[in-house]
Amino acid sequence: MKRAGAEIFAGVFSRGDVAREVSDTAWLQAMLDVEAGLSRALCRAGLASVEATRAIAAAARAESFDVGELGAASAATGNPVPALVRALGAAVPEDARAAVHRGATSQDVLDTAMMLLAKRAVPIVLEDLAKAADACAALAQRHRGTVMAGRTLLQRAVPITFGLKAAGWLAALDQARSRLSDVVRTRLPIQFGGAAGTLAPLGDRGVEIAHLLAEELDLLEPVLPWHTARLPIVDLAAALAGASAVLGKIARDVTLLAQSEVAEVREPGGAGRGGSSTMPHKRNPVGAVAALGCVRRVPGLLATLVAAAEQEHERAAGAWHAEWETLTDLMRLTGSAAAWIHELLADLEVDAERMRANLREGGDMLLSERLMTLLVDALGHDRGHGFVRDASLRAARTDGHLVEALFADPAAAAALTAAGIRRDRLEAALDPLDCLGSTEAWIDRALAAHATHGTDGESSA
Amino acid sequence: MKRAGAEIFAGVFSRGDVAREVSDTAWLQAMLDVEAGLSRALCRAGLASVEATRAIAAAARAESFDVGELGAASAATGNPVPALVRALGAAVPEDARAAVHRGATSQDVLDTAMMLLAKRAVPIVLEDLAKAADACAALAQRHRGTVMAGRTLLQRAVPITFGLKAAGWLAALDQARSRLSDVVRTRLPIQFGGAAGTLAPLGDRGVEIAHLLAEELDLLEPVLPWHTARLPIVDLAAALAGASAVLGKIARDVTLLAQSEVAEVREPGGAGRGGSSTMPHKRNPVGAVAALGCVRRVPGLLATLVAAAEQEHERAAGAWHAEWETLTDLMRLTGSAAAWIHELLADLEVDAERMRANLREGGDMLLSERLMTLLVDALGHDRGHGFVRDASLRAARTDGHLVEALFADPAAAAALTAAGIRRDRLEAALDPLDCLGSTEAWIDRALAAHATHGTDGESSA
Amino acid sequence: MKRAGAEIFAGVFSRGDVAREVSDTAWLQAMLDVEAGLSRALCRAGLASVEATRAIAAAARAESFDVGELGAASAATGNPVPALVRALGAAVPEDARAAVHRGATSQDVLDTAMMLLAKRAVPIVLEDLAKAADACAALAQRHRGTVMAGRTLLQRAVPITFGLKAAGWLAALDQARSRLSDVVRTRLPIQFGGAAGTLAPLGDRGVEIAHLLAEELDLLEPVLPWHTARLPIVDLAAALAGASAVLGKIARDVTLLAQSEVAEVREPGGAGRGGSSTMPHKRNPVGAVAALGCVRRVPGLLATLVAAAEQEHERAAGAWHAEWETLTDLMRLTGSAAAWIHELLADLEVDAERMRANLREGGDMLLSERLMTLLVDALGHDRGHGFVRDASLRAARTDGHLVEALFADPAAAAALTAAGIRRDRLEAALDPLDCLGSTEAWIDRALAAHATHGTDGESSA
Amino acid sequence: MKRAGAEIFAGVFSRGDVAREVSDTAWLQAMLDVEAGLSRALCRAGLASVEATRAIAAAARAESFDVGELGAASAATGNPVPALVRALGAAVPEDARAAVHRGATSQDVLDTAMMLLAKRAVPIVLEDLAKAADACAALAQRHRGTVMAGRTLLQRAVPITFGLKAAGWLAALDQARSRLSDVVRTRLPIQFGGAAGTLAPLGDRGVEIAHLLAEELDLLEPVLPWHTARLPIVDLAAALAGASAVLGKIARDVTLLAQSEVAEVREPGGAGRGGSSTMPHKRNPVGAVAALGCVRRVPGLLATLVAAAEQEHERAAGAWHAEWETLTDLMRLTGSAAAWIHELLADLEVDAERMRANLREGGDMLLSERLMTLLVDALGHDRGHGFVRDASLRAARTDGHLVEALFADPAAAAALTAAGIRRDRLEAALDPLDCLGSTEAWIDRALAAHATHGTDGESSA
Repeated sequence: MKRAGAEIFAGVFSRGDVAREVSDTAWLQAMLDVEAGLSRALCRAGLASVEATRAIAAAARAESFDVGELGAASAATGNPVPALVRALGAAVPEDARAAVHRGATSQDVLDTAMMLLAKRAVPIVLEDLAKAADACAALAQRHRGTVMAGRTLLQRAVPITFGLKAAGWLAALDQARSRLSDVVRTRLPIQFGGAAGTLAPLGDRGVEIAHLLAEELDLLEPVLPWHTARLPIVDLAAALAGASAVLGKIARDVTLLAQSEVAEVREPGGAGRGGSSTMPHKRNPVGAVAALGCVRRVPGLLATLVAAAEQEHERAAGAWHAEWETLTDLMRLTGSAAAWIHELLADLEVDAERMRANLREGGDMLLSERLMTLLVDALGHDRGHGFVRDASLRAARTDGHLVEALFADPAAAAALTAAGIRRDRLEAALDPLDCLGSTEAWIDRALAAHATHGTDGESSA
Repeated sequence: MKRAGAEIFAGVFSRGDVAREVSDTAWLQAMLDVEAGLSRALCRAGLASVEATRAIAAAARAESFDVGELGAASAATGNPVPALVRALGAAVPEDARAAVHRGATSQDVLDTAMMLLAKRAVPIVLEDLAKAADACAALAQRHRGTVMAGRTLLQRAVPITFGLKAAGWLAALDQARSRLSDVVRTRLPIQFGGAAGTLAPLGDRGVEIAHLLAEELDLLEPVLPWHTARLPIVDLAAALAGASAVLGKIARDVTLLAQSEVAEVREPGGAGRGGSSTMPHKRNPVGAVAALGCVRRVPGLLATLVAAAEQEHERAAGAWHAEWETLTDLMRLTGSAAAWIHELLADLEVDAERMRANLREGGDMLLSERLMTLLVDALGHDRGHGFVRDASLRAARTDGHLVEALFADPAAAAALTAAGIRRDRLEAALDPLDCLGSTEAWIDRALAAHATHGTDGESSA
Repeated sequence: MKRAGAEIFAGVFSRGDVAREVSDTAWLQAMLDVEAGLSRALCRAGLASVEATRAIAAAARAESFDVGELGAASAATGNPVPALVRALGAAVPEDARAAVHRGATSQDVLDTAMMLLAKRAVPIVLEDLAKAADACAALAQRHRGTVMAGRTLLQRAVPITFGLKAAGWLAALDQARSRLSDVVRTRLPIQFGGAAGTLAPLGDRGVEIAHLLAEELDLLEPVLPWHTARLPIVDLAAALAGASAVLGKIARDVTLLAQSEVAEVREPGGAGRGGSSTMPHKRNPVGAVAALGCVRRVPGLLATLVAAAEQEHERAAGAWHAEWETLTDLMRLTGSAAAWIHELLADLEVDAERMRANLREGGDMLLSERLMTLLVDALGHDRGHGFVRDASLRAARTDGHLVEALFADPAAAAALTAAGIRRDRLEAALDPLDCLGSTEAWIDRALAAHATHGTDGESSA
Repeated sequence: MKRAGAEIFAGVFSRGDVAREVSDTAWLQAMLDVEAGLSRALCRAGLASVEATRAIAAAARAESFDVGELGAASAATGNPVPALVRALGAAVPEDARAAVHRGATSQDVLDTAMMLLAKRAVPIVLEDLAKAADACAALAQRHRGTVMAGRTLLQRAVPITFGLKAAGWLAALDQARSRLSDVVRTRLPIQFGGAAGTLAPLGDRGVEIAHLLAEELDLLEPVLPWHTARLPIVDLAAALAGASAVLGKIARDVTLLAQSEVAEVREPGGAGRGGSSTMPHKRNPVGAVAALGCVRRVPGLLATLVAAAEQEHERAAGAWHAEWETLTDLMRLTGSAAAWIHELLADLEVDAERMRANLREGGDMLLSERLMTLLVDALGHDRGHGFVRDASLRAARTDGHLVEALFADPAAAAALTAAGIRRDRLEAALDPLDCLGSTEAWIDRALAAHATHGTDGESSA
């Protein structure tokens, strides 16, 4: 029986190329690659003949095996490896059979295959994250001076630029890429310990074979087998979850900025995208919505994997099993979210005019922070705070103008005059473009940091 | 691209018949059933012709549609319904098209299909739970007098019987069945509200059509549409998680009792089941292990669904999407765990002799609670406690005998003699069969309560 | 050492009266109440003297014990009950001591105290939920005709009324109350089984004492002890999480409606509430934000409790312990969220004029669904859909007017004329007030259902 | 109102010194340290006078403020910082007030305080982890030759040594330390961005002040403010969860090895530790149980923090708030688990004789893997496998002897004789000490890797 919900929602949850790399077929091929790699390692150590190794390599092709049959057979032993080993053994000459799976236990094959999957799938995630980051860098550069309302607790607060917002996304993406790249480069080990970690069937050659196996598969050689010490899984899952969290933040911002009443950005349209069957006028932010649909499932999957790290003795009773589909889903969903976000950022429509208009609609109220700084400098803390607070409250009630409200207060007006501060000068000082503080500097820092990242996510800084 | 990890682990995670009822095909058919049901409802209300309704019913068969194509098309709109509606419309004569999907929005179809899936899949879970409960009842009855060590914090504590343990499983299963049955009977509503809940396209006929649609699909009629009020999802998920939690408790006990050093139960073997490729002597508790593999994934999925209940305005941006595969997995995994547990309980091998032996090995230390009760009654609280505690500590140090250690203390011996308590009488009073307190009564209660449950899990008590 | 983070954030996370009922002192008193209740039960059964029972009752007052000392002492045995039992024993005459804790194990006391806490705390949550529901009912009634934009995927979609939105909140709150009320009334059992469930020290009187204890504490009598069968915890947690999910949905809507650009509702102000130190003009939706802060923590806590239900043998090694603070937090946070939401709904400022204005800003585009229905009826499915889709796309590009765009298409204009549909009639048919479909009927249903709920949340319907 | 459950369970959940560093007082002091650090930074930049800075430093002492009052005041604004800033301002001369909190927003103070807390608390966790790792290293060394049964799926499988098990714990602890140490050294940034990240009130001096503030507090200077880019929280939480997962694995193993029927290890006793009120003979593994109680709560807390990373715009509405107590609990619980595990490992009683006895009880069945290797080498894959599997099944049925069962099969006996393999030689080859494969080598690797770790967890390798 096939797993449920696999295809019917694939457009949303299997976006981009990662799904292919964590498919049933990919799992099967990765397990076969482990068996073939092991035979090569044994051969290099003189424990398998060249002929056996060649026969195994030739047989170890996913298309020669029936995924459905292997899946069904996994019921008898609790995992698909024993059936696969039997099938692979049957596919090679008898004198090659002793070199199949020699010294290994099922978990060696399945865990190492899981690491191979990660080694193949995560770079695709990293590519999409890199493209998303590049798109953010372009937005940060292009919109470094595009003023808009900064919003806190979903309220307009003070002016920022869209470039700063994009720089914030960029820095977060680059951090997430760096974590994930680090995991791919330095934390994906082979698993090779035999039944309980001793590699007893290999006598005193176990460590050597482990070393060769790691070389053959281009994975790390762990200090010792980690059958029930699951930090490699936790590390990988946490780095994926970190990336997913950043993607979720961007997606959330896009849905909020795309709201009808805000309308500052729009997702790219085309080909019926974002349409609604009953409301043809709508252009839904379908990419951001789909990305959120993926991302919201990640914390639960991560919790499952961390909880599953409590594994008994030398090999676990159930917790290990709970990892397989969960980690597969985690890679697929993070990859899918990365694909969605990269696509939507690459062609995001930014309405700079609407941003300015929304900022203006907030009035000079959004500059009260700036005004307060000016008045505190001129009049001291207590009077400065008091005047601005009072004026703000009055202005808020009347939909009025903050500087107007300030000068409408005789005490404030007198104090300001006494301090030599004129109303026109004050108003001029409240041009949003003059109230951006470190905005440009932050953008420059984010862009400079981004320039140090390779396409694999690693930072050379 | 197909969803990953679907088949290769199916033997473990798609046990039993539930997977079929939540498959891609089942999803597709359920959506089509909703569309056909809607056309019948419209017809009964005079808003669709008999011919159109018949044409839609004839066309609404899953085998006529391509799941892969619909899944891919879901990328454009964020869900597969618009493409399905187009395809269904194309499959009926033009004058029937206006009756397809009339008044409905995509979420109406998808949510109602989700409830239909639950209505079809959960009864299968309930059947397996019922069989598991029956198996427990049989064990409780058969082993009501099979003494064994009760264990607390994984330490032998006091005598119980295996019948009591089975009765505990039974009562928990029956409770879980009752919750789940309640959800199936009283908490699976249709969804029907149109774009934003008003059913505007149906003018003043919306409520009437909703009523007829609920009748047609044999689902509940909700007070009002619940597009962003997700208690039906939370209720269903929580009841499934409750059942899964009980199954996990049983699975955990079985793995512990089946430990080589405990060896009080064994799973049924046969057909290579529970074997190990490298260790042919092993008979692994593969059913309990597989069940744990399923159950451990449930808390994370439940958390995802509860978190996803925070949905915006009239229809949500992402949180809704996060439900589809998650709820599907939750049903599949709970169903799979129920199938595993029912199978293993039905033929569980219980080694009553070993249970007695393990209990005896604990010595009369396990009866210290009983001894203390006797001494407190005879000598008062402080002296009773003091003598038993001291004797226990001495006996524990010497691997000795508790009553022996008690009488080895001159003060205790004197006090007991003074109270007319002889050593042989005391030892006789420590027969495990005399120290079972309410064991029989509890077993009777669990069996009596079980007798009130129908096969659908509902209790008539 | 006190638990961290207890007080400094109390304003946010310990709102309302629930925190008091789940405080350290409340825990201590509940445990003492269990001990006192047990002595009364024993007395009624003739197993304790009236004097001993009175002495225990007199001693069982939280203020006589030192929480910090008991907490510290819990390190030795893993829970605070043994130290409490010793202290309570020391506080009564020696001949009363044998009646203290007789037959019970630590978990009996702690679990039953947990149920007592729930019985005391959850009704407070229910009260706040009832007040929140009443506030929604008032809003639904008052604003049944207040048109506003319904929003899907955060885009304006079709007209609804604010009354309908409030009715949706109301129905969800009433459902959540019903679940939670059901748990309080029917699913809070005593725990009483002794060391391993047999109640061996009570001989054949165990079941009788359990019955009397349940009566004394006004809790349910379970079928049998549930030391490691944790459905009562799962049920309670799930019902709290359900309530919390509904509160989160409301809070999310309020934050979105209160956005500066939407400005359709405002939280009540006053007393510096919702202010910002640096931005005095802001009126933050502090209640909704605080409620979300509480609610977002619930899925993780629920997952912990469900995962913790996998408990070993007769009493668990760690999973049980994981429940205590987690369930306490779950009650506190749900209670706090309920208090926040009830307060903010009671005085929510609704700007009906702004709602209308926002709807108008969306233009007749929001009525495209209605228009499509009219045209499909007049011209058939294919032509109707085609004309409206084309006109919508043109109107969207030009910020134009939908009906205008429709008649600008010669083919559409001709078809409409031929069908006898005049432009003015079409425009008149697009009055939002005429496009509300079943809105009034839904509101009436929600109000009628609400009227059947008592203040305890139970529905008499 | 104080937070619930703070003290009554402190013995279990606030073990060790971490709780103190994340207490209410610690939170308050950390916030004050941020304010004082900011004033020093401003002073160095010439934006505050030396006098003002001194006055602020003098006032910024936790004991001068009332935690309860600040906590209560947090209700008005949603966090305690505005009230604290007011109180701190009131505690300094008026002309110092403008230097208080200058340029900062509440979240700058709270987030930076959170990082300070981590910088103070995590090194304590690291110390306990280092002690736990040292204890494992000593066990690995001392017991490198202590044979015992390796167990898979809770079944005895093949021989290992207790030293190998301890080496596995060691390697995992060292990995976890390395991750956590890395976070403390390289991923704890200040937060400083003002209302929406621009630091507008500081004009063009913002970036400079941020740099100085980071220096003053000895925290990192981030690329740009991370108000809604929460990777620092996710990184910290994930590293804590990783450590917690390793501690949970060790705790689980200890509870399993300490089972009455296994009895291979015991926790240190003394001072009533591990006792039971009703069962004085018990020596519960209270440390491992308490550690599990802590660890089981971590996945849910981690999920909350990762989900909370989806934060809106420039500052979030609720998700940020959800972090405070959650991260506090995560640090406290991981610290508590580390303290428990370090204590129990330091004095773990290991019963080498019982380990050997349990292994012997498994018979030569546990060497079937070894036997199979020998026969496959001698007789080829198919015959080797066949003979051993058949013999194993017969031996398992008869509780017999594997080599005996092998020679009881005439075909096998003949084949072995033909291959020159004598029964006595075969039996000699099955000495467990000769079947340990790479055990010693793995232990050496774990010890060598451990030697490269400093007490701060960092590896110099």
